[in-house]
Amino acid sequence: VKALNVELAERRYPVYVGQRLLPAAGAILSRIGFKSAPVVITNRKVLRLHGRAFLDSLRKSFGRVPVLCIGDGEKYKNHATLLKIYDGMFRAHADRSSWILAFGGGVVGDIAGFAAATFMRGIPFVMAPTTLLAQVDSSIGGKVAIDVAQGKNLIGSFHQPAAVLSDTEALATLPKRELAAGLYEVVKCGAIRSEALLSYLERHLARIMDCRQDALAHIVMQSARIKADVVAHDEREAGLRMILNYGHTVGHALEAATGYRKFKHGEAVGWGMIAAAGFGRELGLLRPDEAARLSALIRRIGRLPSLDGISLDRIWDAIARDKKFQSGGIRMIFLPGLGQAEIRTGIDPVSLKRFLQEFLELKGNLKN
Amino acid sequence: VKALNVELAERRYPVYVGQRLLPAAGAILSRIGFKSAPVVITNRKVLRLHGRAFLDSLRKSFGRVPVLCIGDGEKYKNHATLLKIYDGMFRAHADRSSWILAFGGGVVGDIAGFAAATFMRGIPFVMAPTTLLAQVDSSIGGKVAIDVAQGKNLIGSFHQPAAVLSDTEALATLPKRELAAGLYEVVKCGAIRSEALLSYLERHLARIMDCRQDALAHIVMQSARIKADVVAHDEREAGLRMILNYGHTVGHALEAATGYRKFKHGEAVGWGMIAAAGFGRELGLLRPDEAARLSALIRRIGRLPSLDGISLDRIWDAIARDKKFQSGGIRMIFLPGLGQAEIRTGIDPVSLKRFLQEFLELKGNLKN
Repeated sequence: VKALNVELAERRYPVYVGQRLLPAAGAILSRIGFKSAPVVITNRKVLRLHGRAFLDSLRKSFGRVPVLCIGDGEKYKNHATLLKIYDGMFRAHADRSSWILAFGGGVVGDIAGFAAATFMRGIPFVMAPTTLLAQVDSSIGGKVAIDVAQGKNLIGSFHQPAAVLSDTEALATLPKRELAAGLYEVVKCGAIRSEALLSYLERHLARIMDCRQDALAHIVMQSARIKADVVAHDEREAGLRMILNYGHTVGHALEAATGYRKFKHGEAVGWGMIAAAGFGRELGLLRPDEAARLSALIRRIGRLPSLDGISLDRIWDAIARDKKFQSGGIRMIFLPGLGQAEIRTGIDPVSLKRFLQEFLELKGNLKN
Repeated sequence: VKALNVELAERRYPVYVGQRLLPAAGAILSRIGFKSAPVVITNRKVLRLHGRAFLDSLRKSFGRVPVLCIGDGEKYKNHATLLKIYDGMFRAHADRSSWILAFGGGVVGDIAGFAAATFMRGIPFVMAPTTLLAQVDSSIGGKVAIDVAQGKNLIGSFHQPAAVLSDTEALATLPKRELAAGLYEVVKCGAIRSEALLSYLERHLARIMDCRQDALAHIVMQSARIKADVVAHDEREAGLRMILNYGHTVGHALEAATGYRKFKHGEAVGWGMIAAAGFGRELGLLRPDEAARLSALIRRIGRLPSLDGISLDRIWDAIARDKKFQSGGIRMIFLPGLGQAEIRTGIDPVSLKRFLQEFLELKGNLKN
């Protein structure tokens, strides 16, 4: 088991990465100080795939463990589910001394974390992420939220977990498309902070897609380290943390323009990074060979859902509604080189729109 | 205008106390750095009584000011109202750079503060409390929450305001019973931290009840200072902050045992302090003359709703469900002397129950 710490002073917490962590969860969590049983929040699919050894381990350490199941999928990350979680916690006699264990992917982590942030003004919670996206991204950094009709993640908090247990064996049951969706966020971590991680992905992609545990553990640990480092410097996204949004300007817009149905988040970010790299090259900010290298890696991961039928107008509407669109220009993340990122403001909307038009016409196959 | 600061490092904020602050709100808030218009959250009664000069002042500084009205009363401090606030904020095009101005009593402050804590993962808010209870207690310290079927304030956050504007002139329109309810919390502040404040109340009670501005400003400022000092030392109620719960063990139980209908919160705390002083005297922790002095001051403020018809069983049920009731004994706040407080754990439930039985039989008229 390898561990790193998210260095947030008195809210410092460990991230464990390795094999067979779920069957050791009770022992690990006892050792770091938990004494009573958590309320486990999960869904039936995760429970069926990974629940037995995990719950056995928790019961061995803590006795009876209440389990609350929520629906599987982003459409359940809403107020109705949140109220059901609160009700379940009261039924389980949870109080100020209780804690939550979020066991599942990003949806479970986001909503269970928000429940923890707000139940009796905040109780501790631990993340046991079971998808690649959750292990490399959403489980670290304390962003918790629910979706509302007006958009995703618009109601939420910053509430850091007390620990993260990323068992890479859980990734073996992921559908290939889900694994690929997580890999785009790993590419993003490399793109903004670690050329070495990009290079590792290039060399070991086949082994990663085969779920070879050493390779998975390496990329999860490296991505977690990058995320933890960025978050430790800027918990509330006042500055540096924005670099984690590389590829997200166009990525979010693609998701919104297609009603969050066509793309998985990671896939949209995959397209968003290809676009951002191309736009960066066009602005003279990224060398053509580096842009091409990044795009090639993204395309090797898998077939991204096509851009056919997505109109520039819908994408542009979504970008214009985005918080990153400020009067006087757009804020975007660019790479001065692979493994480095910078925040640029005042990007000319006209240039971006012109670039996106060409990007869509060529279906992302930019000459590079 | 007098000001004090709640010393919470980077979340330090000023509390302004004085006359004619509402008509100067725009100027004050501009001066401390707000540049755009807030979303004002209030209710129709507050708006009718104090809204005009306040909104005029805000408009002069910030232009158009969206105003969201919620229902008046604790029964509106719930999820349904919270969702209406979120919707109103989206309709007003609020985003991450917006801020909320909570204008009203404790209900408005609690729910508007919780909306601010959770809208887009937290935006700033300012309190402009218009009741004595809110000015001396709930506006300071960042406890924000809503009620649920299972109890009061069970879903919430710690989210400190960016500033508090306590205009004592707003108190002139309060019904006498409302003013008295706030005064019991002022007595509590004196009881736990300032014999001088108790003495001031004893000497100036008539002038306070007449809403003489100098007297109101003095007690609001002194209470705010005490609350701010306690909160600065223990924001999350890990220890010291518990002393603010003096009189609340029995107080909360009286409220719960009567379905939150018979007593205003302050009145229940008034009874709770009389009980706590009596019990402290019985345990040999508080001198009889000091217990008598505290009870006499509380009774001078006004006629507390009677204890007739409230059964010991219902009160005891409520105490047993309280978080302060731990296995092995009850945690209560006691006064070693007037103006000092200490947290005691392991209080024998049998003694407390026996004391409360006598207390109810004598309708609180304990021989002292």
